[in-house]
Amino acid sequence: MRLWGVMGLILGGSVEASLNRKTRPNIIYMLMDDMGWGDLGVNGNLHRETPNIDELARSGVVFTDFYSAAPLCSPSRASLLTGRLPVRNGFYTDNAKMRNGYTPQNIVGGIADEEILLSELLQKSGYRTGLVGKWHLGHREQYLPLKHGFDYWFGAPNCHFGPYDDKHTPNIPVFENEDMIGRYYEEIPIDRNRGRSNFTNNLRDKAFEFIQKSVDDQQPFFLFFTPDSSHAPVYSSLAFAGQSRRGKIGEAIMELDWTVGNIMELVKSLGIIEETIIVFSSDNGGACVGPVEQCGSNGPLLCCKQTTFDGGMRVPGILSWPGTVEPNQVNNDVSGLMDLFTTGLHLAGVPVPEDRIIDGKNLLDLVKLKNHRKPRDSTTGTHFFYRGDTLGAVRHGDYKMHVYTWSGATTSSQWHFCRGQNVPNVTTEAQTDHSMAPVIYNIGQDPSEKLPLPVKSAEYQQQRPIIEKIIAEHQKSLVLGKPQLNYCDDSVMHWAPPGCEKLGKCLPIPPSNYAKCYWDH
Amino acid sequence: MRLWGVMGLILGGSVEASLNRKTRPNIIYMLMDDMGWGDLGVNGNLHRETPNIDELARSGVVFTDFYSAAPLCSPSRASLLTGRLPVRNGFYTDNAKMRNGYTPQNIVGGIADEEILLSELLQKSGYRTGLVGKWHLGHREQYLPLKHGFDYWFGAPNCHFGPYDDKHTPNIPVFENEDMIGRYYEEIPIDRNRGRSNFTNNLRDKAFEFIQKSVDDQQPFFLFFTPDSSHAPVYSSLAFAGQSRRGKIGEAIMELDWTVGNIMELVKSLGIIEETIIVFSSDNGGACVGPVEQCGSNGPLLCCKQTTFDGGMRVPGILSWPGTVEPNQVNNDVSGLMDLFTTGLHLAGVPVPEDRIIDGKNLLDLVKLKNHRKPRDSTTGTHFFYRGDTLGAVRHGDYKMHVYTWSGATTSSQWHFCRGQNVPNVTTEAQTDHSMAPVIYNIGQDPSEKLPLPVKSAEYQQQRPIIEKIIAEHQKSLVLGKPQLNYCDDSVMHWAPPGCEKLGKCLPIPPSNYAKCYWDH
Ligand SMILES: [Ca+2]
Ligand SMILES: [Ca+2]
Repeated sequence: MRLWGVMGLILGGSVEASLNRKTRPNIIYMLMDDMGWGDLGVNGNLHRETPNIDELARSGVVFTDFYSAAPLCSPSRASLLTGRLPVRNGFYTDNAKMRNGYTPQNIVGGIADEEILLSELLQKSGYRTGLVGKWHLGHREQYLPLKHGFDYWFGAPNCHFGPYDDKHTPNIPVFENEDMIGRYYEEIPIDRNRGRSNFTNNLRDKAFEFIQKSVDDQQPFFLFFTPDSSHAPVYSSLAFAGQSRRGKIGEAIMELDWTVGNIMELVKSLGIIEETIIVFSSDNGGACVGPVEQCGSNGPLLCCKQTTFDGGMRVPGILSWPGTVEPNQVNNDVSGLMDLFTTGLHLAGVPVPEDRIIDGKNLLDLVKLKNHRKPRDSTTGTHFFYRGDTLGAVRHGDYKMHVYTWSGATTSSQWHFCRGQNVPNVTTEAQTDHSMAPVIYNIGQDPSEKLPLPVKSAEYQQQRPIIEKIIAEHQKSLVLGKPQLNYCDDSVMHWAPPGCEKLGKCLPIPPSNYAKCYWDH
Repeated sequence: MRLWGVMGLILGGSVEASLNRKTRPNIIYMLMDDMGWGDLGVNGNLHRETPNIDELARSGVVFTDFYSAAPLCSPSRASLLTGRLPVRNGFYTDNAKMRNGYTPQNIVGGIADEEILLSELLQKSGYRTGLVGKWHLGHREQYLPLKHGFDYWFGAPNCHFGPYDDKHTPNIPVFENEDMIGRYYEEIPIDRNRGRSNFTNNLRDKAFEFIQKSVDDQQPFFLFFTPDSSHAPVYSSLAFAGQSRRGKIGEAIMELDWTVGNIMELVKSLGIIEETIIVFSSDNGGACVGPVEQCGSNGPLLCCKQTTFDGGMRVPGILSWPGTVEPNQVNNDVSGLMDLFTTGLHLAGVPVPEDRIIDGKNLLDLVKLKNHRKPRDSTTGTHFFYRGDTLGAVRHGDYKMHVYTWSGATTSSQWHFCRGQNVPNVTTEAQTDHSMAPVIYNIGQDPSEKLPLPVKSAEYQQQRPIIEKIIAEHQKSLVLGKPQLNYCDDSVMHWAPPGCEKLGKCLPIPPSNYAKCYWDH
């Protein structure tokens, strides 16, 4: 019997069986902000500024074809935590077509109570759950992290991008749990001209405390670590000044890499490395508006953040779990951030909700586990590229079909999200419907989306009906969530966040001016 | 005294001093053909098809900013072996402006006797010298490898690209030493439709024999290993069929990687790994004409083989010497293939010729050696980007200035070497002189040459005079070599190569039609 058991494992026993061998692992998801696919040394960044992240990659799996569910922060993060596309979970707007809605501080909406978050399920199953860093799923009281499954939170509800003084709009508050502890550019200094702040160090210290306390309490933990220093205006602490040939963005990335290294060291020194799975990624591709030294690198990929091209949505993807997941793996399957929902549930032994469509899958089914055979490469993975309410493209296996393209904003050619790149009929400055003559790429051969397949080619003719059928089925089954990003109101801004009284930081709340938000792009 | 000696090493004794500690190392230069910067896993290739080359990289240094001296085969190889730019060593044409001359089989010229080759100096200094693979420095009798410093040669004088039958022009012969042993597509089968041949295996076997015999004879050796299966029509042996998602080029690269791994294994198993320096590179960037499955990847770099953009001339650069060169290094200095001349001489303790300008420098001065301090990063390295007789661009430190651009050929828009890419005023389809208003890039921030610096920016205004001065000084000191690639003659083709009689493979030699060659691009 014992022999058969061993044979079963070797010949391909289920993942569940192997997971049952140990207690439920700790889960650390590290999600960077606007860090591009090409910002990692392991993905070929010319400057090789990420030795620690590269080491994390070697210790486990690099997912080369790892996608976010949206080309910008809020919907991408909502999709990670719900395992569902933004059009399902409500993190989109239909005020206008194909608009990149998010959660600025005048947004009225946020993550709906009907949505089930990974944090909620893990908390319920006995995990200690912590968010250290940016939230971005809504900032009105009912939307904050502690209402959505997190036991602990240190960080800000929005990005540190604007405003920069409290005169017209309040600066963004930083919270510890229920109460604000200060505001960016005030108690939390960021020198955005020099690109300097110690805030990433603060986040690291809080992550350390959270991990340490969970280990002390012998409770499995879920840490969602979301620093945002690689989002413009990028910053790092003084120790990284002048360290990068590419300027401030490189310095920010070097500090984030150092921080990842610190967390890896802590996990090792606490002796929990084999009981801890670490995933590293970014919420969307590198941006390409504003000064170059504020912009991440998308390597060979086309265009940037805000777009449905690969530069907007293909992001770093690393998973490490020493002792369980074999090291030095590269995985080319179509995968992405929504998979982290389903993967997290599997790790915790929590059933995946069955009352709704979940887009994510279990990443551990794709990779080689110790004492297991390597799974077959999947060549049939599918990813839907939405920008707001509009499906721009679908990737299926090695092919990507664009049905609707837009590279810019409505009002200004300065906001062109393919800066320096131009593929005729593809990087279109106006919204362009291609559904009658889709643009198809063989992404396997042409990852840069430079060479649309000729319409008359056999490859095009073969792929078009396959992907059109996938789209038709997707659209038939699609139940749109109620759009959360349609309404804005200055009175919901951070005039008087919880805890402001204690600090003497409350500002007078102006009258409501509830109205549809204007989204330019 | 002893203490001081050790201190000297630690505090920065000369490289020579440390090299004197051991016997002169074996030197293996592995030069691929048309393999692009982005074809290596370690440089971020999406498919990660080069685990052995990546391991070689980790065992030593990756040079990220490593350039060839020309954007195509013959002049690039001549420059590697002479340490000199093609305009100095004669591997260019002035039949027309900015033309990519090379050595097709009707070329009259070849490497001049006045040029001093690395192989010649190493041979004279006691090294056993071997070329296994493509030569491409001229194929008339006086130009062949055994006349230019090689003790041993197995391979072809030209590329396996065309012709494919002996009726109008002879197929390219493969030599072992003085005599041909057969011809491509005849005795040396290549199935170019399927992309299949065992020839890379043949080359590996010959490389093995050469290394083994050198070790048996206790003679230090220089092996120049130059397989060309990644040049169109690309090929690999049957074992790699269907192994790559990107088709034939991926299969060819996987086999080359496997071959590199084989050679590394041999060096290890012979116990000479610490007495052998291995360098891996490619002669020029990936091509982008013809079917995509024949084209290598230049990753994030602009344009392809044949151009003075980085995609044409920035190539893989790896150096490994376990025990002497520290592992896991990344070097961002401006460096390149011409440095291999000077580096090789230093390794062999041979003085660098002083009667002529040598463009190469010693790479070991750039990297961290065991028991030495890391050298300072050089931010002042310079590289000249020539296409034929014309200086297209200069890189100095982090900046690259284009003074003359051309992305295509004269006769056909099919021969456009920036396929799928378009930077206005830069990827010009016509020859364009920018000397009155040069295009300048900060390559450190913008390695893809997408975003020319604004002419009015302080950065532009600062860099322009610096690089213009470098160009003026370069041109003042430039003594043009006699152009070797001006004349063609069908009678010099491989009708009756040495050894053809023994094989019954001699073809009748037609009358001479000596005339200027026509170079289209
Ligand atoms: Ca973001
Ligand atoms: Ca070549």
